[in-house]
Amino acid sequence: MLDYFFRPRGVMIVGASRDPHKLGYGVVRNLVEYQYRGNIYPVNPVANEILGHKCYASIPDVPDPVDLAIIVVPAKLVAAAADECGKRGIQRVIVVSGGFGETGEEGKAREQELAKISEKYEMRIIGPNCIGTIDTHTPLNTTFVIGMPKVGDIAFVSQSGAMVAAVIDWARGAGVGFSRIVSLGNQVDVNVTEMLRSVAGDPQTKVITAYIEGLTEGREFMEAAEEIARNKPVVVLKAGFGKGGAKAVASHTGALAGSAEAYDAAFEDSGVLRAHTMEELFDWARALAWQPLPKGNRIAVLTNAGGPAILAVDFLEKSGLQLSQLTEDTKKYLHPRLPSAASVNNPVDVLAGSGPATYAVALDTLISDPQVDAVIVIQAPQDWFLPESLAEVIGEVAAIHQKPVLATIMGLASVDKALGILHQKRVPTFAFPERAASALTAMCDRQEWLDTPDESPTEFKDVDKEAAKQALEKEDFSAMLAAYGIKLPPSQLAEDAGDAVQIADKVGYPVVLKLVSEDITHKSDVGGVILNLVDENSVRKKFDETIKKIHADFPKARIDGMLVQRMLSGGQEVIVGVRRDPQFGPLVLVGSGGVEVELQRDVSMGIAPLTKSQAERMLEDTQIGRRLKGWRNIPPADRQAVIEIMLRMSQIACDFLEISELEINPLYVLPLGKGAFAVDVRGAVLVK
Amino acid sequence: MLDYFFRPRGVMIVGASRDPHKLGYGVVRNLVEYQYRGNIYPVNPVANEILGHKCYASIPDVPDPVDLAIIVVPAKLVAAAADECGKRGIQRVIVVSGGFGETGEEGKAREQELAKISEKYEMRIIGPNCIGTIDTHTPLNTTFVIGMPKVGDIAFVSQSGAMVAAVIDWARGAGVGFSRIVSLGNQVDVNVTEMLRSVAGDPQTKVITAYIEGLTEGREFMEAAEEIARNKPVVVLKAGFGKGGAKAVASHTGALAGSAEAYDAAFEDSGVLRAHTMEELFDWARALAWQPLPKGNRIAVLTNAGGPAILAVDFLEKSGLQLSQLTEDTKKYLHPRLPSAASVNNPVDVLAGSGPATYAVALDTLISDPQVDAVIVIQAPQDWFLPESLAEVIGEVAAIHQKPVLATIMGLASVDKALGILHQKRVPTFAFPERAASALTAMCDRQEWLDTPDESPTEFKDVDKEAAKQALEKEDFSAMLAAYGIKLPPSQLAEDAGDAVQIADKVGYPVVLKLVSEDITHKSDVGGVILNLVDENSVRKKFDETIKKIHADFPKARIDGMLVQRMLSGGQEVIVGVRRDPQFGPLVLVGSGGVEVELQRDVSMGIAPLTKSQAERMLEDTQIGRRLKGWRNIPPADRQAVIEIMLRMSQIACDFLEISELEINPLYVLPLGKGAFAVDVRGAVLVK
Repeated sequence: MLDYFFRPRGVMIVGASRDPHKLGYGVVRNLVEYQYRGNIYPVNPVANEILGHKCYASIPDVPDPVDLAIIVVPAKLVAAAADECGKRGIQRVIVVSGGFGETGEEGKAREQELAKISEKYEMRIIGPNCIGTIDTHTPLNTTFVIGMPKVGDIAFVSQSGAMVAAVIDWARGAGVGFSRIVSLGNQVDVNVTEMLRSVAGDPQTKVITAYIEGLTEGREFMEAAEEIARNKPVVVLKAGFGKGGAKAVASHTGALAGSAEAYDAAFEDSGVLRAHTMEELFDWARALAWQPLPKGNRIAVLTNAGGPAILAVDFLEKSGLQLSQLTEDTKKYLHPRLPSAASVNNPVDVLAGSGPATYAVALDTLISDPQVDAVIVIQAPQDWFLPESLAEVIGEVAAIHQKPVLATIMGLASVDKALGILHQKRVPTFAFPERAASALTAMCDRQEWLDTPDESPTEFKDVDKEAAKQALEKEDFSAMLAAYGIKLPPSQLAEDAGDAVQIADKVGYPVVLKLVSEDITHKSDVGGVILNLVDENSVRKKFDETIKKIHADFPKARIDGMLVQRMLSGGQEVIVGVRRDPQFGPLVLVGSGGVEVELQRDVSMGIAPLTKSQAERMLEDTQIGRRLKGWRNIPPADRQAVIEIMLRMSQIACDFLEISELEINPLYVLPLGKGAFAVDVRGAVLVK
Repeated sequence: MLDYFFRPRGVMIVGASRDPHKLGYGVVRNLVEYQYRGNIYPVNPVANEILGHKCYASIPDVPDPVDLAIIVVPAKLVAAAADECGKRGIQRVIVVSGGFGETGEEGKAREQELAKISEKYEMRIIGPNCIGTIDTHTPLNTTFVIGMPKVGDIAFVSQSGAMVAAVIDWARGAGVGFSRIVSLGNQVDVNVTEMLRSVAGDPQTKVITAYIEGLTEGREFMEAAEEIARNKPVVVLKAGFGKGGAKAVASHTGALAGSAEAYDAAFEDSGVLRAHTMEELFDWARALAWQPLPKGNRIAVLTNAGGPAILAVDFLEKSGLQLSQLTEDTKKYLHPRLPSAASVNNPVDVLAGSGPATYAVALDTLISDPQVDAVIVIQAPQDWFLPESLAEVIGEVAAIHQKPVLATIMGLASVDKALGILHQKRVPTFAFPERAASALTAMCDRQEWLDTPDESPTEFKDVDKEAAKQALEKEDFSAMLAAYGIKLPPSQLAEDAGDAVQIADKVGYPVVLKLVSEDITHKSDVGGVILNLVDENSVRKKFDETIKKIHADFPKARIDGMLVQRMLSGGQEVIVGVRRDPQFGPLVLVGSGGVEVELQRDVSMGIAPLTKSQAERMLEDTQIGRRLKGWRNIPPADRQAVIEIMLRMSQIACDFLEISELEINPLYVLPLGKGAFAVDVRGAVLVK
């Protein structure tokens, strides 16, 4: 559908110009210079021709075939031009012109006008305020930016035009090829998600990269990304983690699960590889586009010098990859073929004097070792052999095996030719060994994600949704949890000390007294929680003392009484929370519970609905997850109960989208088989 | 002293060759080609001349002046050659030849021979198995590696010859200048520390960089580094954090304070900036060499596009730097001078169409703002102005102000000329904005370190060193701490239940019973610690039960009885440990205490002796440090007592170097003003 933006049968340029300093000239120039083979129709009321192409005085004058219009007229004339395009039957429009939402209210109104035109004519619009599209295979270059990348198989989708300009210039210098490049501008119609789907459908594209500043369509993005990532790698650089946007939040979950964390969780869930710098974005993309994925994470390093190999190994180990244990066969085979002082253990060091033949034998042997999933080949500069011979050898060996090979040819002045050869043979090269290791880590991450079996979110049938709904209306979050099968410790509200003693007898000693007041949030901070009361006397005394003290300290607070709860012991404290993220909707958080959660920040997040193995992974990522398995003299706790409660909370979050925050802290987790109890529950509803 | 290695009055090449494939040719070629102006004396028994320089048949034949000999003969002939050099009165020798310690026992013996010759003649030797030295100012290039970097002010000291070769090739390609480069090889005599001191003394060197794989002279390194860092930045890339070397350890401190952590602590203490990749090493070095340090951490970003600025800001915020709040004057001045849609808030975005004049005005205004300590200037590619004009402008403005300016000229194909201009004007440039932000972070770190007032380690006079010594001999670590003024909870050893009751009466209820047995390390894990006994009956009963149980579970363990200790309450648990690191000697660790220290890994380390502010900083770096200040309903604890105990532990560690590990866990810290008590103490002594 969006394909015509990259392969039109004819292009009209509304606002084409003869003045080389104008954008309307640059667009025509790029179409011509970068050899677009379809018809080029400049629209200009006064010119006869531009760069050899006949000009048309108005949009209706332009003959067929024309699928795509590029509009570069001033902002105030854009809507009229787009409308004429619609009338002319053109359903693909790129609005390059700026002066829209980015400039203020008037610009926003212009965007709304454009959106209406898009709807009226079922017209797809990229922009406004964008740079346009490039397809190196068509070839087509609708931008005004000087330069065209080589033909390649990496697509780049960007929310920033400047990034596109930078990438084009960088790609030309580095000799990296691209398939499609697109700048989306203000996204009045076509958004990132839709564009990702479109470029993913391009057979020439092997890897999709994107620069994203923000998403409004979080869920659709996740769905699309996951679907795409099953077939082709998606690598995203997400920018913008300023602290500016932090709002007041009602719970720990709100404070811990910010927007940055939500993006992380969403990307991880949907198989998106998240690069942290521009360099990583394209380092990873090259490796993913050019080499097969490793089947496992056992890496061999082949080098002619110790230092660079150590740097690679440092990075691999830090990233959780393993150095392969080479088989005895490999070592025996290599030993007589390498210099006597060489190391045949991984990293295999062939020493400074070894040339392409030794590398060829060693690389072929390593890559054939069943204990090796991938090889990083390093060469430090040496003066005995041509770097390009080594490049030929690496390319040749890599091509006949089905395992990834990444190269680091160190140096800069003397290695140009070698790098060119490796590029051409589709072996990614990196100036420093750490960068090769980083790219390999991304490849292993992707393989691991692909290996995770597809699993449906768990859905519990034993829930009483109607009861939960009624509880939610009264903002009785405890009752809501109970309706969803989450256990609370036996308890009851006491209005006076006599009540309290009766209830304590019923739930069983020891008990806890907890202040009930809507006006006081952190009850334990104000002395509203009294633990471990063992008999009638102490219950009576503490009840009266506490109510008196709270009345004195908070004369205006409404106090309902105190909750008398059976006190649990011998368990561990966990927090399980859900929050509604503005981009991604409900997400679930799990971590170390108690009053110190914000100090400890031992949490992990996932986007709801959760699957069981996702909940397991989240818990595994936290310290408390390991602690729940037992630690030293702490007995193993009921981890499965925690996972079940995470899943039930996920179901609540998805069933009641009006919940903005809901949290159990502490969830008190008893030893193996004894379950977990929601000791304290807190929640908030979205203000409509 | 080592200066002759870089500025000799004459150089002799022992093993000079006419064969262009031999190292002995390469060395002569580099001396000649890179225009060494002193005398060049090839020593070769058969050749008449090499590259126009007369050959000498033997070492004694070589005429004066000659300060430096480069030996490139086979390993087995090296000692004899060095000895002849000694006799000839030459006291500076570079041994390029390999075949020494790196190849096995025979090679090690050869190294010892060389070490003896070095001693005999007071001869300084670099190598063996090294690449040699470069001084671009002399100029001198004693290596055989093709290529010579430009004249510059960055020195590079390397324990890997391959890294030197890679850096030379990279420096030529990137156009980065160096002052001195040296490869140290097997360090039979001259080591990293001595070489750092030497290059730091070179007036042409502004920044010292180093690639280090390991140190044997940890303490001297720290002293030298700190002295140097007061005047010139030292940036180190330390490689080699494999898990191979982990040994069995007796305490938590041993498990947590590994060699990698010791390097981190040592570098931080001595003001060494630690780079994590080769790229960072030289990114930081350029920034430090070419620009003044920022006086604070308030950063302004000037850009012509939003995207790249966001990436820079993300990185700055992640690193703890601040975006400057620009003054109203600045904003007022900029507003009429920038396009109307431009942002005059930081990041200042002049938009795509702005040229060098706008950048000039904006940069000059920003850098003059008293709220701005440094500026990152970003330009995304644009087609309206030449990138080199912007480069001129940035260079010119930066030169007239005393604040650092770092540039990111994005792109590659079209920016060569601009980068050359900025290099020449000493404005560091980075291909991506994140890298500029990283370099600026290193500069701020350095300024912060320089601003830390110099302070002597605290030394307590109220210690009984003699008593401690005696306690140590008996491995009674508790008594040792007591002798150093560290308080233990009142306690006494009880041999039977009757004893226990008497002691409990004395120390006061509630009490704790603790098994005393040298054969059982983690007492609480085996049920050997009974908490909170409130009366005579329970003491008597638990004493007998426990001893019986331990006897049954550990029939072979020797049991001395149980310690009866006053039970403390209402405090927080901290761990304070010391460990003797093989490289850096005693170091101190502090963190969250209790049985879960290894699970939590909330620790910070420093090399002893500690100063008071160092101890404060260490504590501040941990979660428990913040918790000790009070958190929610947890009252503030006696933080000062913890700091005092850290300092006393540091003093013990320095006074008794035979201690391999000593640890208080938990150190029980009572509320403000009530002190801290060493509840459990564990130690180990170095096996001699």
